[in-house]
Amino acid sequence: MSVDTSPTDGRRAKGRRTRAQILEAAADIASVEGLEGLTIGRLAGELGMSKSGLFAHFGSKEELQLATIDTARGIFARNVVAPAKEAERGLPRLEALIAAKLAYLRREIFTGGCFFETVRSEYDSREPGPVRDVIEADLQQWEQLMVRAITSAKKAGHLRADVDAEQLLFEIDALSGTASLRHQLNGDASLYDRAEAAIAARLRAAAL
Amino acid sequence: MSVDTSPTDGRRAKGRRTRAQILEAAADIASVEGLEGLTIGRLAGELGMSKSGLFAHFGSKEELQLATIDTARGIFARNVVAPAKEAERGLPRLEALIAAKLAYLRREIFTGGCFFETVRSEYDSREPGPVRDVIEADLQQWEQLMVRAITSAKKAGHLRADVDAEQLLFEIDALSGTASLRHQLNGDASLYDRAEAAIAARLRAAAL
Repeated sequence: MSVDTSPTDGRRAKGRRTRAQILEAAADIASVEGLEGLTIGRLAGELGMSKSGLFAHFGSKEELQLATIDTARGIFARNVVAPAKEAERGLPRLEALIAAKLAYLRREIFTGGCFFETVRSEYDSREPGPVRDVIEADLQQWEQLMVRAITSAKKAGHLRADVDAEQLLFEIDALSGTASLRHQLNGDASLYDRAEAAIAARLRAAAL
Repeated sequence: MSVDTSPTDGRRAKGRRTRAQILEAAADIASVEGLEGLTIGRLAGELGMSKSGLFAHFGSKEELQLATIDTARGIFARNVVAPAKEAERGLPRLEALIAAKLAYLRREIFTGGCFFETVRSEYDSREPGPVRDVIEADLQQWEQLMVRAITSAKKAGHLRADVDAEQLLFEIDALSGTASLRHQLNGDASLYDRAEAAIAARLRAAAL
């Protein structure tokens, strides 16, 4: 038995697992109802836990919201960013990022579609604040990752040198994000095929 | 003095005006905070009216939500659909619809950007119900209008006969809707130019 498995460490590890499970449920609820609907009372009801038990993990609604965004970011990173890193730099990696994002949307890893599409549109016109700021920073991080992939595809000669990386990123994100939002509304899964076809056409035009 | 201006008719007309003003404020609030945040208490606070005064107009939150959607639909129809009807049938009318929608988004007629983008994404993954059903029906109505305009442009020989109307509609809506959502989040108004440029390129390709 190693020193890592003392009773105290065991309780700490169990506490971390419980916290992680609570936050995965929270991210799923927020993907449907938004982060404003994510109250400690609502979450306690969903998980069959006491409100005081949840308060022991999160002192406030805002703390719970921020921790939920952290968890959703981790899920997105594991499902979209990490697999794409296996692909070669340049166009292959850009295409891998696009394919991984569409696969993540199609698989509905969050019940309400993309967690980030939901909360962006929930907070987009609200006053600045810690939650909104983190949501905006996360979008920037994704956009920077995509712009780097596009730029690297240009440098590798896979895409034309005059391709506007910000414009291409905007079009790709608009098509995949809207497929997810509309599919959630009308149940039409063929929208992912439409997004995929449009993005492929756009990349072919950029590669000429 | 006509019979239409009796004291009773005057009171009725005033009541209709008050109701219309309340609903315009409600649509504006909902464009920022969504329809779930639109409680009678919240609206009363915003308008400096009593809750009982508002209850006289709307018996329930759901009634208020449905009436707010009606009002937003009217604003959209006046600003986007009506002006485009002035244009000639075929490609000119399709282009007029696209231009009117982008102008409506740029002008931020609703404080929180497009009322319909906000509430669609708020309700997209919720259970069916009267509010969600109306939101989905409104999207269908817009899509049918756009598909008719595209089909008419094909029949007039302005767009290629093999253009997939549903695909083209999806791409146009994705680009303009995302420009509005992202602009609300990051304040970057150049996204409307990006949407406009991408849609124009798409129409040129469809016209070949």
